[in-house]
Amino acid sequence: MSTAVSPLAPTDVPEMPAIAGVRLATAAAGIRYKGRTDVLLAVMDKGTTVAGVFTRSKCPSAPVEWCRARLGGGSSKAGFARALVVNSGNANAFTGKSGRQATTLTAAIAAKAVGCTPNEVYLASTGVIGEPLDATKFDGVLATLAASAAPDDWMNAARAIMTTDTFPKVATATVRLGKADVTINGIAKGAGMIAPDMATMLSFVFTDAPLSPAVLQSLLRSGVEDTFNAVTIDSDTSTSDTLLAFATGAAAAHGAPKITRASDVRLKAFTRAFRHVLADLAEQVARDGEGARKLVEIIVEGATTKTSARRIAMSVANSPLVKTAIAGEDANWGRVVMAVGKAGEPANRDRLSISFNGIRVAKSGARDPSYNEAEVSEVMKSPKIQIRIGLGLGKGRDRVLTCDLTKEYVAINGDYRS
Amino acid sequence: MSTAVSPLAPTDVPEMPAIAGVRLATAAAGIRYKGRTDVLLAVMDKGTTVAGVFTRSKCPSAPVEWCRARLGGGSSKAGFARALVVNSGNANAFTGKSGRQATTLTAAIAAKAVGCTPNEVYLASTGVIGEPLDATKFDGVLATLAASAAPDDWMNAARAIMTTDTFPKVATATVRLGKADVTINGIAKGAGMIAPDMATMLSFVFTDAPLSPAVLQSLLRSGVEDTFNAVTIDSDTSTSDTLLAFATGAAAAHGAPKITRASDVRLKAFTRAFRHVLADLAEQVARDGEGARKLVEIIVEGATTKTSARRIAMSVANSPLVKTAIAGEDANWGRVVMAVGKAGEPANRDRLSISFNGIRVAKSGARDPSYNEAEVSEVMKSPKIQIRIGLGLGKGRDRVLTCDLTKEYVAINGDYRS
Repeated sequence: MSTAVSPLAPTDVPEMPAIAGVRLATAAAGIRYKGRTDVLLAVMDKGTTVAGVFTRSKCPSAPVEWCRARLGGGSSKAGFARALVVNSGNANAFTGKSGRQATTLTAAIAAKAVGCTPNEVYLASTGVIGEPLDATKFDGVLATLAASAAPDDWMNAARAIMTTDTFPKVATATVRLGKADVTINGIAKGAGMIAPDMATMLSFVFTDAPLSPAVLQSLLRSGVEDTFNAVTIDSDTSTSDTLLAFATGAAAAHGAPKITRASDVRLKAFTRAFRHVLADLAEQVARDGEGARKLVEIIVEGATTKTSARRIAMSVANSPLVKTAIAGEDANWGRVVMAVGKAGEPANRDRLSISFNGIRVAKSGARDPSYNEAEVSEVMKSPKIQIRIGLGLGKGRDRVLTCDLTKEYVAINGDYRS
Repeated sequence: MSTAVSPLAPTDVPEMPAIAGVRLATAAAGIRYKGRTDVLLAVMDKGTTVAGVFTRSKCPSAPVEWCRARLGGGSSKAGFARALVVNSGNANAFTGKSGRQATTLTAAIAAKAVGCTPNEVYLASTGVIGEPLDATKFDGVLATLAASAAPDDWMNAARAIMTTDTFPKVATATVRLGKADVTINGIAKGAGMIAPDMATMLSFVFTDAPLSPAVLQSLLRSGVEDTFNAVTIDSDTSTSDTLLAFATGAAAAHGAPKITRASDVRLKAFTRAFRHVLADLAEQVARDGEGARKLVEIIVEGATTKTSARRIAMSVANSPLVKTAIAGEDANWGRVVMAVGKAGEPANRDRLSISFNGIRVAKSGARDPSYNEAEVSEVMKSPKIQIRIGLGLGKGRDRVLTCDLTKEYVAINGDYRS
């Protein structure tokens, strides 16, 4: 397993301000790791709303099913949350009946510790798949955490949810909502692989803005589209991917209006800031892809639609041949053509243009007449590679982030037993 | 580039008999490689029928477009072939107008050398994409080859079409058709960019059976479904995938009936043998996947339909996390669950069972109670890994072949042009 921090880690880590109504605490519960924290408890004030988006896997983990059921309603507390419990080291996925029992028990322990109902407790787990999670390990631990939780523990929170991530991922924004400044804080963990089990993306975003559950859900659903949903590391999808957002509403006390309609014009700046936080976290996930040495941005323009542009961009971003070429600092645009062609979307070979970091290598279905191998080779040494693909068919445009595919990726994921 | 022969190469290479009406010759035309053959000419007798299936890439190579246009008709010679020219080293793909000119010129040179019309010439190219192919290099070479072509040059033919392949791929079958023995010979090249549909980079099958063009096309189309289309190396699909079949009809002279309907019952044994040749070649392609150290067979049972089973099997076969786990000899069934879940097909986590080489590791949505890590680790050392997935939903079943994902794959594809 690689332990060195990714060379693509951001150099500029923000100070994370407190968010009124949110308190955090972490502990080492000994789920799997030794000598590091592996449990995060977030305690939210009464009235905190919650929204979530989850993996599209047909085999989701027990915590994903737990959260979906809580959000789905039935309970009078649907849309409201008082606690979030996240553990790393064990994903509680594919654990059958014992997995469901573990979520029920964890929620009961957390509810007692925080003083709420289990329906107000949200759960996420990341780590090994298929190993039963012993939820009794949370007994005692969560009560201690609830008592010690503090508003300024964001970096420790980001650290406690890591698996093979090489750096903690945080982002923050402060923005005007009505007459008040409101804050948005987010933490994430990415597709890092722990002694080779499940990569999972977990992200939790908190704000003191007063937003109804429906507004928060709408913000989240539209916000992920061009951020978390536009990042791919290796085309594999975790059974546990979870993004939850919590809004305490505490800013209402100093003048922020209560927003109950997603179309409310007062939400405009907030929406932009919210997306910025999601985009920042999503990019950090790409920067910490397993074995990644290069951040790769794929821009597709001139597609028939945005959806078509996304599919083509994803086809390029997930192509092992494109990704290995980038690892080899080779501007192999033939492989880009291949990946465009296999996407199955409208494409006219003879209109295709491709550039790497601003240098056009192909146009109108053939090598660019001005192509200069030395010049292109030089830009391929950059830690950030932008591939721009022009289809020349319409106005559809999209952007996807990924990373290169290195021997280190294979080592991290394949050297388990050797 | 790796030069060692794949450890998965077949130990048992068949003697390739002659096929009446087919003559072969190879040469070193200096397309790209030094010190090896890179052009194959196959000359067929008059009356030889032809059929083909090709890549579904939206950006096909010039030779693919050439063959499609010849097969598509218009010409009175549609469905009949006298020559096949294959070169390795340059794919003549994404070469624009000059690519089309290169195919026209190559066909003209071959037609003159063989004594036929250009519409009876079929072409295939493999190698680098986006570099202009200098077809004048074939001038002279093809006339010499036409003069020296011989019926027994099958191994050399298979060698001349290789790129990163580590061994030549040949297969043969002899079967009764009416009162005569007829022969089917096939050659193929594979290595990377092998994913459906159609999953061969290049393959050519020849027989002396008297089959109409429509019958040959029908045999080919149904034959690829569970053979070449059920093989994937890295999920990438070439712009050049080409499978052509040629039937000289020479066996009619010693009693084989002319078959003009695909439903003809006399074709039964032949159909089986034909598929066997395709399956043999397709498996050799999987055995020679770039960097492959293990042949991997994915069997999905109990899916709602065969199509659904295929999609799930492909999702598992193309998962980098599954493939790296197998490279690491790790029976990581959690990753198999992940890959089943991301396929988007009907799956019920709590009915899922998974076994590796006959040892069940998961059942009913949880680890098999009899799971024994040492026993499973032992079978993972085998060069052939069979993953059997039971969905417990219906009767849909399918099978896909792939290989593991090793550091060698990254090395081959990260250092290809450098």
